[in-house]
Amino acid sequence: MDIHELTRDLFVKNDSKIVMLVADGLGGLPQSPGGKTELETAATPHLDALATRGVCGGSIPVFPGIAPGSGPGHLALFGYDPIKYRIGRGALEATGIGFELADGDVAVRCNFCTLDENGLISDRRAGRIPTEQSAPIAESLRAVSIDGVEIFVEPVKEHRFVVVFRAPGLAGNVDDTDPQQTGVPPLAAQANDDASRKTAAIANEFIRQAAEILREQPAANGLTMRGFAEKPKLPTYDEVYGLSAAAIAVYPMYKGLARLVGMQLVGQAKTLDEQIEALQSHWDDFDFFFIHFKYTDSTGEDGNFDEKVKQIERLDAVIPAINQLRPDVMIVTGDHSTPAHLAAHSWHPVPTLLVSDVCRTDAATTFGEQQCVTGGLGQFEAKYLMSLALGNAKRMTKYGA
Amino acid sequence: MDIHELTRDLFVKNDSKIVMLVADGLGGLPQSPGGKTELETAATPHLDALATRGVCGGSIPVFPGIAPGSGPGHLALFGYDPIKYRIGRGALEATGIGFELADGDVAVRCNFCTLDENGLISDRRAGRIPTEQSAPIAESLRAVSIDGVEIFVEPVKEHRFVVVFRAPGLAGNVDDTDPQQTGVPPLAAQANDDASRKTAAIANEFIRQAAEILREQPAANGLTMRGFAEKPKLPTYDEVYGLSAAAIAVYPMYKGLARLVGMQLVGQAKTLDEQIEALQSHWDDFDFFFIHFKYTDSTGEDGNFDEKVKQIERLDAVIPAINQLRPDVMIVTGDHSTPAHLAAHSWHPVPTLLVSDVCRTDAATTFGEQQCVTGGLGQFEAKYLMSLALGNAKRMTKYGA
Repeated sequence: MDIHELTRDLFVKNDSKIVMLVADGLGGLPQSPGGKTELETAATPHLDALATRGVCGGSIPVFPGIAPGSGPGHLALFGYDPIKYRIGRGALEATGIGFELADGDVAVRCNFCTLDENGLISDRRAGRIPTEQSAPIAESLRAVSIDGVEIFVEPVKEHRFVVVFRAPGLAGNVDDTDPQQTGVPPLAAQANDDASRKTAAIANEFIRQAAEILREQPAANGLTMRGFAEKPKLPTYDEVYGLSAAAIAVYPMYKGLARLVGMQLVGQAKTLDEQIEALQSHWDDFDFFFIHFKYTDSTGEDGNFDEKVKQIERLDAVIPAINQLRPDVMIVTGDHSTPAHLAAHSWHPVPTLLVSDVCRTDAATTFGEQQCVTGGLGQFEAKYLMSLALGNAKRMTKYGA
Repeated sequence: MDIHELTRDLFVKNDSKIVMLVADGLGGLPQSPGGKTELETAATPHLDALATRGVCGGSIPVFPGIAPGSGPGHLALFGYDPIKYRIGRGALEATGIGFELADGDVAVRCNFCTLDENGLISDRRAGRIPTEQSAPIAESLRAVSIDGVEIFVEPVKEHRFVVVFRAPGLAGNVDDTDPQQTGVPPLAAQANDDASRKTAAIANEFIRQAAEILREQPAANGLTMRGFAEKPKLPTYDEVYGLSAAAIAVYPMYKGLARLVGMQLVGQAKTLDEQIEALQSHWDDFDFFFIHFKYTDSTGEDGNFDEKVKQIERLDAVIPAINQLRPDVMIVTGDHSTPAHLAAHSWHPVPTLLVSDVCRTDAATTFGEQQCVTGGLGQFEAKYLMSLALGNAKRMTKYGA
């Protein structure tokens, strides 16, 4: 069920302000059974006060048991069914480095690899060549020239880079050229439908010219392509919710995801305090504010329980500044759980709170996984959070008479 | 997911009796944060006893954040996916005044309007002409005669009336003739598909003849048409559940909704006590009884917290009479929340209880929003209530081997 089928017809505009504060990977696990999670361990007086005034619950990013990446995790929070709307790997990689895809672009994740004298792959990752070395090599591929095609080559990290093809009539249904094994040559790019034939031909010509350029490289003398993907077609916040939306993020991936749903990037924040300053200075300009906080996820990914606790406390400290702006609807959630205990994204429901004047408060008095289990939002699919936000902001009329 | 896909195949018949008592707009909000809702404030010893014996939960009428009208609210309670099954505005208006639509009918909501000497709309609602004046004018339009078409004109209220066209080969995909502004003439009825051309032609002929009849009216000298709609095609309770179902309602809208799913109207009750008498006297004749209580909604709509509390207490007082009949499954719920605090339908989950000998009781000891949050039914979509009822009535066999 796509919530936009209804929200498109039902939304109304008013002066309300909605803030969605996303602590990436917020949900956690105890370090040992029976203990407290990161969020339950952290001293969070301001989040606890919000939980007391508001309504809590556990957000299920995709469905039970599924650990999402950043793409589906955020799409769900933004109200876009993460099963229906998929962002191809190439498009996500381009988005993640801040490349602004245009309609019709096809983006591809590329790996440098090492080819032996017979053209067979001897190392699929070119010895995990360091970024300092690989970035200029990737940039050297900008010399590739194909008639009628605009080509962008952007370094990512180590052996990884992104190529974007821009030309009329491209589609992204092209097989990977990575054979997923050594001792064989890279595959040719093959289209799986007529609409993608031109893309495959361009990719093969790119590979041919790149081979010339890379010939003398000791490690990165070959390349493979994976995850051909068109720019995803997502309706905008304005179209489906009638909201003018701002994104206040530090990292390119989250800026990119926000831009895909039509949010405007505001500020040049590098720190959480600067993000809050951006919120304050743009408060009058937008209806909806997405604030992304990265470090609950990265510390979780590092398996660093104590540091994740500290990052949650840092987040708690900025809540009063947001409160001062008096948002009509305030949401604190995450795109998924990243328990330090697992050092990875997980499927566990994400602690979520929503505060509004009409939210029907529950019994929760602290913000944490256990209290969210018995909260008034129950365990709900993340994709419904935006319709809840609109309801609480009185931004939807009745469905049916 | 349409529950009927399974219930059609799985239902079995037995002698059990199911009562669904719908307190319209039952769910509420505290008057101020931290306070009690209407239902929590009301003294409801009999409902509390049911909650203690039964299992509680919060019913989500459509999906989180969506406030439904009576149509989708009731369809969901009846187990009909309120997204899949939509009742067009014209059909709902006809249903609401007790007009029994036949298959193939097209119903239209009409407004009297005032036209100036140039035929331009000067008042879209004919000065909200009082019902006493408008009803005979609407009835005068019964003089319209079109070959091969049966035409029904029914007054509603103030400037509103309903027209139903009955003829072979009609469809309802016709644009509104209301231009939604003054200073312009009403639009002609235009079909959006071939199947609806005949309807549009009939509507235009109706409008032409009506103009003659209305010519001398000071205010209501024109009309606009909105919400052309066919009778919705809903499978019946007998087909999808194997239930013979009775509806005991006072207001035409709820009688009409019940009739659309094949319930039989019983009794002529004007009061709740008379409704209970109807239940008693028809107890042996049906498997399922839908009892509709309106005043929890109307007092909520009025913003009258104290009066809504009193209406809930009135409802509580009839529970012993229902208990005496020993229903196998007893459900108390609402089609949506209507918090007096909002004086409007809302999206908040609706307190719901279900009692049967096999319902797996939870910890709830009173019937109220807070206890429902942690009840054994959890927060569930209303459309699943009927399959729960059937399960508790042992009226379904196992799914799969």
